[in-house]
Amino acid sequence: MHKVMFLPHKRDIKVADGANLLRAAMDAGVHVNASCAGEGVCGKCRVIIEAGEVSGGISEKLSRADIEKGYRQACLAQVKSDLTVRVPVESAVDAGVLNARRTPRQTARIKEINLDELKEKGLFVPPVEKKYLELPAPTAQDNLPDVTRLVSYLKLNHAEHRLEVDLSVIRKIPRVLRQNEFKVTATLARPVQETGKTRIINVQPGDTTERNCAIAMDIGTTTIYGQLLDLRTGRILGEYGDFNGQISYGEDVISRIVYAEKPGGLEKLSEVVLATINKVIGRIIKKAGVDPDEISTITLAGNTTMTQLMLRIDPRSIRRAPYVPAATLYPPIKAADLGMALGDHVTALVYPAVSSYVGGDIVAGIMGSGVYRTDELTLYMDIGTNAEIVIGNREWLACAACSAGPAFEGGGIKLGMRAAKGAIEDFSIDPLTLEPMNITIGNVRPKGICGSGLITAVATMFEMGIIDSLGKFNRDLETPRIRKSDGIYEYVLAWKDETQIDRDVVLTEPDIDNLIRAKGAMYSGFMTLLEEVGLSLNDLDRVILAGGFGSYVDLEKAMIIGLLPEMDPAKVTYIGNGSLLGARMSSLTNRIRKDVVEVTRKMTNFELSETASYMDNYIAALFLPHTDTGKFPKLKARQEARKAGANPVKNGV
Amino acid sequence: MHKVMFLPHKRDIKVADGANLLRAAMDAGVHVNASCAGEGVCGKCRVIIEAGEVSGGISEKLSRADIEKGYRQACLAQVKSDLTVRVPVESAVDAGVLNARRTPRQTARIKEINLDELKEKGLFVPPVEKKYLELPAPTAQDNLPDVTRLVSYLKLNHAEHRLEVDLSVIRKIPRVLRQNEFKVTATLARPVQETGKTRIINVQPGDTTERNCAIAMDIGTTTIYGQLLDLRTGRILGEYGDFNGQISYGEDVISRIVYAEKPGGLEKLSEVVLATINKVIGRIIKKAGVDPDEISTITLAGNTTMTQLMLRIDPRSIRRAPYVPAATLYPPIKAADLGMALGDHVTALVYPAVSSYVGGDIVAGIMGSGVYRTDELTLYMDIGTNAEIVIGNREWLACAACSAGPAFEGGGIKLGMRAAKGAIEDFSIDPLTLEPMNITIGNVRPKGICGSGLITAVATMFEMGIIDSLGKFNRDLETPRIRKSDGIYEYVLAWKDETQIDRDVVLTEPDIDNLIRAKGAMYSGFMTLLEEVGLSLNDLDRVILAGGFGSYVDLEKAMIIGLLPEMDPAKVTYIGNGSLLGARMSSLTNRIRKDVVEVTRKMTNFELSETASYMDNYIAALFLPHTDTGKFPKLKARQEARKAGANPVKNGV
Repeated sequence: MHKVMFLPHKRDIKVADGANLLRAAMDAGVHVNASCAGEGVCGKCRVIIEAGEVSGGISEKLSRADIEKGYRQACLAQVKSDLTVRVPVESAVDAGVLNARRTPRQTARIKEINLDELKEKGLFVPPVEKKYLELPAPTAQDNLPDVTRLVSYLKLNHAEHRLEVDLSVIRKIPRVLRQNEFKVTATLARPVQETGKTRIINVQPGDTTERNCAIAMDIGTTTIYGQLLDLRTGRILGEYGDFNGQISYGEDVISRIVYAEKPGGLEKLSEVVLATINKVIGRIIKKAGVDPDEISTITLAGNTTMTQLMLRIDPRSIRRAPYVPAATLYPPIKAADLGMALGDHVTALVYPAVSSYVGGDIVAGIMGSGVYRTDELTLYMDIGTNAEIVIGNREWLACAACSAGPAFEGGGIKLGMRAAKGAIEDFSIDPLTLEPMNITIGNVRPKGICGSGLITAVATMFEMGIIDSLGKFNRDLETPRIRKSDGIYEYVLAWKDETQIDRDVVLTEPDIDNLIRAKGAMYSGFMTLLEEVGLSLNDLDRVILAGGFGSYVDLEKAMIIGLLPEMDPAKVTYIGNGSLLGARMSSLTNRIRKDVVEVTRKMTNFELSETASYMDNYIAALFLPHTDTGKFPKLKARQEARKAGANPVKNGV
Repeated sequence: MHKVMFLPHKRDIKVADGANLLRAAMDAGVHVNASCAGEGVCGKCRVIIEAGEVSGGISEKLSRADIEKGYRQACLAQVKSDLTVRVPVESAVDAGVLNARRTPRQTARIKEINLDELKEKGLFVPPVEKKYLELPAPTAQDNLPDVTRLVSYLKLNHAEHRLEVDLSVIRKIPRVLRQNEFKVTATLARPVQETGKTRIINVQPGDTTERNCAIAMDIGTTTIYGQLLDLRTGRILGEYGDFNGQISYGEDVISRIVYAEKPGGLEKLSEVVLATINKVIGRIIKKAGVDPDEISTITLAGNTTMTQLMLRIDPRSIRRAPYVPAATLYPPIKAADLGMALGDHVTALVYPAVSSYVGGDIVAGIMGSGVYRTDELTLYMDIGTNAEIVIGNREWLACAACSAGPAFEGGGIKLGMRAAKGAIEDFSIDPLTLEPMNITIGNVRPKGICGSGLITAVATMFEMGIIDSLGKFNRDLETPRIRKSDGIYEYVLAWKDETQIDRDVVLTEPDIDNLIRAKGAMYSGFMTLLEEVGLSLNDLDRVILAGGFGSYVDLEKAMIIGLLPEMDPAKVTYIGNGSLLGARMSSLTNRIRKDVVEVTRKMTNFELSETASYMDNYIAALFLPHTDTGKFPKLKARQEARKAGANPVKNGV
């Protein structure tokens, strides 16, 4: 790690060797003009290296003289030692502006599964176990049937009672027993309920106890992620994600259901998602060098529509009022029967759902994150096109889905895009010149802006007064970056020749409006849920964010726009793909499988469209941060302090 | 019914209108010479109709004068009224011979399932039940998932608890519920154990409770029989049998196993037997006009090899010492998964086995015949190539298989054949002329002799002294019918021109020897089992015969040759296809399914080849009736009475 000191701000930050200097500045809360975001095109991110060493940072935008003076382009420079870097203040900016508090980006704490903790709590009890057995060979005096021999031995020597044997085991047992002198490994699948039976699901010749794996999988509308788990250690042996093949048949669940209603549509969508599932299975098995016969179990979680399509269950009533799913609990199903490229012995466990729009992915998140076991009142949010909200603790759980729209994933935003290479993901603005500092994924020229970039840009501009609480640009500012184009106000994030595309990358008022409506829907969602259970924001102990979106969001910015309630960012945790986490946890401990049915029953579903207060809350949330700024005391205090002092923009200080 | 009086015997019998007159004579115990058995070819069965009316009976073998005198050929004549029939005694046969007691053929009492009795005993509780339900339609306030709606309604209004729902039901429930305004029929499969769950296996729109069927099936090595049952009434709606398609791959279980050991052999045999099963299913469904969706369950029983081949379970260790089957209990399996042409909702229940050679067909017979519920000590025999013997009652059951060889099915007999058209199935002999009276199946010219005919012929000749206790012909008799051909003694049952084939139909000494060895194996089987459990023949309360063979055997004749222990024929019951009977009973009452596992455990298997006394008993049984005639007191008494009087044959009386 190297320490980088930025001057004249006197703000320092520690970064890894080789870190991009522009990103280091952003993370330190230091604004450096940078439209092109990382390919040296705009040439605006000139900084002077006063001490220490960087690699790169030189292009034809810098004269030989400049280079000798220590000028480098921050976007092209990598930190190679402790540094002192001076940001040339090219306009008259007073110390007040320099020190204008810019909180370093703070994303949610990422929560990982702690295997040791699980083991200590006795929670690491994989549902599938292997036992190596040396059976006596049959004789004329002892000619028990093969299965009876195995079962009796397990009873006598391993105190295994209430055993059931799968047909696939009966089919192969004569061969397997005789392949290695009646020395075999039996795979036992434990019952979820104590009253249940242990099933013998596989027999393999010799001792294979060292190889016992599970697959956990998230069946997302857009992406399917799989993890290969070692059931002895709990470790992840491999991981792979791929686009759900159903994407060609519709972007969202509604268009998929519409397709499924066509003749042969359901079968087609089922076939296509299974092809993706099999691709993911194939990849993780191959990458980890595991024999398919060593996979003992698979757990899958997905939203209600994805689950029904995968299981070939008619989804048509999901999209029609009163929004009825076919089922919320699914029986254990032989994976091969579903068309999965797994052994005959593998049972697929599919996470139960709560309702048509609070699916198994959310239940998995609640199980995996432990919300259902905690005393703390938790707000769980899985943010995406279809956002789901759960509030509760071990005692009770209330949940709802709200249609936030696709703004957080870049949808409905003029130059919005998913969080992929070239997306502006972080942003700062010079309060005086209104020049932007863009940080893109991959440090390449911008192609568009993704959800986290959008939130940061809107929050930053709002706090600086560049946009007002209605999301409208201050019409009085004089900068070519803010302009009216075809009657619509917009801010130019990057000029055409600084981008990867053939036009300017802009942020428009309708974009901001879409974001406000999306965050308004989310905010109204959890406010309505809280009200329905008679609680308020102050009662919340913590927030858990799930979903691809939450990983990189600047929490303070999300609070500024009113997407999250204003609270201590330390109380916000990010669990990543909650669906995958829950599927993984279920693979590692039977306890989850046992508890999940009860938890599903406990989760009270609220149909927001049927809840009168939802629309009121929504309307009230269509402001930055909210109609009632009393709900955002810190922001209000800052705004008032600023008013009392000076508006840095308007007053040009 | 008409009464037919035979003179000069003064013996009468009641027969149905249109009955064959030759058969009537045989059944009355009246000998009429009849080589050709029913096509008027030999012309020997001339009788005089002294009173009453027959139709037919006239051919070119009778002169106009004879006809006018009332002569008719018995084999061609049908009884149309009460008759007085004189059998012309063409040789000097004294009254002693005429009155030589010939017991009318007595076959075992056929036992049928008494449904009313089952219902009274509370035993008629089909494992699958239908319920018609009028569910409330969902509303915004009540938008339960479809499955939950169904399950809740059953709980609330039908006190149905502990319900499980099949995936196939989840798949179709959205469509089915909405097809007829949420009025549906649910099919419930009851658990075998009280602790188990009731499964909802099907939902159908509207009220279909009137149509609820089951299939019972016997998977025989040779033949596959299926029955379609109405689960509301217990009645048989249709029945069909066909040759097991595996016959082309070997006649017996051993050759089938040998074939199954070849690459792809097991898969082939499984495929072939399933094709036959599907053919049988298709036929009975079509004949009965039942929709395949109305079939709710199927129960199958077969010997251990047939079961393993059907389930695609490697059978190789069945045929190798120490004769180990893969399993004796099979889990419930989805019929469609096995390749059966039945709905997704149908579970196949496969009867458990005891050992490699006492299979599910025998267990089914024990369950179906009620042996396991009676206090009476019962000898149960399923006679065929592989004969199985069970002795016991409700307290205990001992069982064994013995390889009787195929003699009872006509195998290993020079002109032996299965019980098909043209097979001599009954026989009598004129003690003086040694002319035969052949009765064939279908009343056509003989093609050969089947098991029941063989037993009757050998028993009759033995009792008349034509063959001795070693099964050798009396060399002193002067008749062209007994001759030495290629060094082998034989009796000509029918001359070439009286047959359907191009040669004489004969019964040879090696044939008799084969029969003696077959019956010796059977006799030794039950004697050894009795000895092993410390009992004797006198302890037996009754005998149950099962299998195609037992239906037409003359019980007294079977006792004369020592195939059955000598006992009151009234104590012998014939249940027909025991395997099919058990499968049918299991379809009609869950009680059987519940008891069967316990019964299977109770059945102690004896490997006769490992039981020292078996060979001794076998050697002792290689005589007619047995070395120890003390075991056949009635036969011994008759023989002694005859010796004290006169040997009708030798003395020409």
